[in-house]
Amino acid sequence: MNISIKRLQNDIEKYARYGKEPNSGITRPSFSEADFEVRDLFIDELKQLGLEVKVDGASNIWGLMKGNGQKKGTIVIGSHLDTVPNGGKYDGALGVLVAKEIIRTLKDHNIILNHELEIVSFTAEEPNDFNLSTMGSRSFTGKLLPEHLMDVTDSKGTRLTDCFKKAGGGLDHFPEMVQAHKDKKAFIELHIEQGKRLEQQNISVASVNKIVGIYRDQVTVIGEANHAGTTMMEHRFDALTAAAEMVLVAEKIAREDVKDTVCTIGKFNVFPNAANIIPGRVEFILEVRGETEEDIQRLAANIKEEWKKIKKARKVNVKERNILNQKPVHLDMDIVASIEKAAQEHDVPIVRLASMAGHDASHMADISKTAMIFVKSINGKSHCPEEYSTPDDIEIAGNVMLQAILNVDEQLD
Amino acid sequence: MNISIKRLQNDIEKYARYGKEPNSGITRPSFSEADFEVRDLFIDELKQLGLEVKVDGASNIWGLMKGNGQKKGTIVIGSHLDTVPNGGKYDGALGVLVAKEIIRTLKDHNIILNHELEIVSFTAEEPNDFNLSTMGSRSFTGKLLPEHLMDVTDSKGTRLTDCFKKAGGGLDHFPEMVQAHKDKKAFIELHIEQGKRLEQQNISVASVNKIVGIYRDQVTVIGEANHAGTTMMEHRFDALTAAAEMVLVAEKIAREDVKDTVCTIGKFNVFPNAANIIPGRVEFILEVRGETEEDIQRLAANIKEEWKKIKKARKVNVKERNILNQKPVHLDMDIVASIEKAAQEHDVPIVRLASMAGHDASHMADISKTAMIFVKSINGKSHCPEEYSTPDDIEIAGNVMLQAILNVDEQLD
Repeated sequence: MNISIKRLQNDIEKYARYGKEPNSGITRPSFSEADFEVRDLFIDELKQLGLEVKVDGASNIWGLMKGNGQKKGTIVIGSHLDTVPNGGKYDGALGVLVAKEIIRTLKDHNIILNHELEIVSFTAEEPNDFNLSTMGSRSFTGKLLPEHLMDVTDSKGTRLTDCFKKAGGGLDHFPEMVQAHKDKKAFIELHIEQGKRLEQQNISVASVNKIVGIYRDQVTVIGEANHAGTTMMEHRFDALTAAAEMVLVAEKIAREDVKDTVCTIGKFNVFPNAANIIPGRVEFILEVRGETEEDIQRLAANIKEEWKKIKKARKVNVKERNILNQKPVHLDMDIVASIEKAAQEHDVPIVRLASMAGHDASHMADISKTAMIFVKSINGKSHCPEEYSTPDDIEIAGNVMLQAILNVDEQLD
Repeated sequence: MNISIKRLQNDIEKYARYGKEPNSGITRPSFSEADFEVRDLFIDELKQLGLEVKVDGASNIWGLMKGNGQKKGTIVIGSHLDTVPNGGKYDGALGVLVAKEIIRTLKDHNIILNHELEIVSFTAEEPNDFNLSTMGSRSFTGKLLPEHLMDVTDSKGTRLTDCFKKAGGGLDHFPEMVQAHKDKKAFIELHIEQGKRLEQQNISVASVNKIVGIYRDQVTVIGEANHAGTTMMEHRFDALTAAAEMVLVAEKIAREDVKDTVCTIGKFNVFPNAANIIPGRVEFILEVRGETEEDIQRLAANIKEEWKKIKKARKVNVKERNILNQKPVHLDMDIVASIEKAAQEHDVPIVRLASMAGHDASHMADISKTAMIFVKSINGKSHCPEEYSTPDDIEIAGNVMLQAILNVDEQLD
């Protein structure tokens, strides 16, 4: 039993028309006009498949395929249909559309699972104008409560509660979401990798056993602003050259780290920022991501240890202030094993990766046995019109996921 | 015969009251209220000294002390009375007030020179709201013409021509300035060093034989903006880490350069400048200053040669565009020799330096034999309230300048 990649490709192209920009990028944030249109389409299609459709308090869309009654609870599959501004066709939508194709395939083969099988499209996974990413999954899992959301508006003053209502949800339905947790036995989210690790190894598909933690420090380097002409090289306390050394040391240590950690300095501002004044101050954010808290702390500590030497050698002052410390999430090894077994059964090579980005699965992991499947990204591109995964890779990943669901259905009580 | 350092110190403190900020910094840009007040004071004091006072087209203030008629032309001494916002007591004012003290000392001793001796305070030497620094000396020497200035306004819409008029000048008097060039036989400007070279050598005074050239390139480093989580270290084309390496290489090459060249990257901007996005582009300005065109070109070329390697190794794109190429100015060796002879006569150690900043002397050098005298700056500070030179150093420099004037008067025809 295999999914139909042709049918799935048609779906991908059909959904990509909603929010399409002239340059072929897609702008479909949750509660935009394009999002409301795509919600209507999705609900219609779920109903045509004979699913029992429900919209919860956070306007997440659920479609239930009944089981044969032998096992209690549901296996949930899906992702999100919103996009970043000028994003691609695959981030989010692929996970939802593969889930739909799997249900369609099961229906075609008249297969009824022991568990109920449920498809979900979560609301507002991407960063958005309400400043609440993974909004749907955080609301569903009880991390965002009505009191957090009741006064939230976007930059134009639109109330989030009005958006929930317009999409079929509402804060008054939040208690029902908590009730629903107990039914959710497993969650599998398929997503594009958004990196180059699979491409590098020429492997189509990965099981994801961890979602990285993110650590951020606000760093200030204080030197001495001075005249760019009259201050000789040996009399300078240049905050920019000191910060440049810090940036390179951070890069070097992250490159040499034994684990798949990453370190980024993405925000970096120089003061007073004039061509004829030696920089007196630099402010930047150090970001470290790693699969374990230990990895993150080791990398950050190693970087800061080297920074001390730079600070001393260059006689500059360095202040560090932690502004984010999001812990890594360990996914469920039973589900990971089911995915890897499925790949073996299909004779498909698979690797085990950590997700270096956050996902709805990070939150679903709190209430349910959860794992993810990654599909190879071409050139590692994401959040841009060039985002792409090949039909071959998608087909392989979709079939692995279908088999994984059958395995999970078999193995879980 | 020596100047009175006590009288000079009183002058420095008196003039520092005009435009004084609560933090003891001084804000006295040309044509500000404080500047008009200080102009009135200065003209009054010149008249009290029995000088023939003239205000030229660019509102530069001149005070003439007659000679004995044995030699034609004038020896000009002075600097500027305007300051940067929140500047110090010494940058500019010291050169004017030492010149005034020298004339006072000559008068006290009933000394009349062979040449006429003239004191000048140039208009708007510092960067200002009209975006025309060294405005007075550039106008006097014919580099700024009425057609360049007639429509100039400041950020509030005030017309420069109205300011000239209010201060006693005006575009209609510009032709007289050209006429005056032929009378100017020599120009000596005393100024604080604004650097640490004299302090380093524990020497009070320097003769200045060159004014550096300034070369600036606008540099753009283009990498690839990408997800800070999913893009592994080895798959990155980080424009910031590439630019950091370029900044450090420029610093290293300037430090190792055999000459007193300096290189500064003071303006530096990162794009898109977000904590979770690997920088895709960095724009910065490379500034190189050196005493000779050859020094500047060698340093810039050495830096760019190393940059090519970084560009290649990191697979980023680098674009360079020259935006300034101001040539070095060679001052008059006869005047320099007169200054150094004066130091010897006073048994005072003196070094020969290049000025790493621009000055009115750069422009006066076009029409007259010109040199400068530098006074030691404490901690190299300038353009800030902490700007300071000790009374001892000022006294030494003032007496060297007085003797240098006598030497020049003797040696020039």
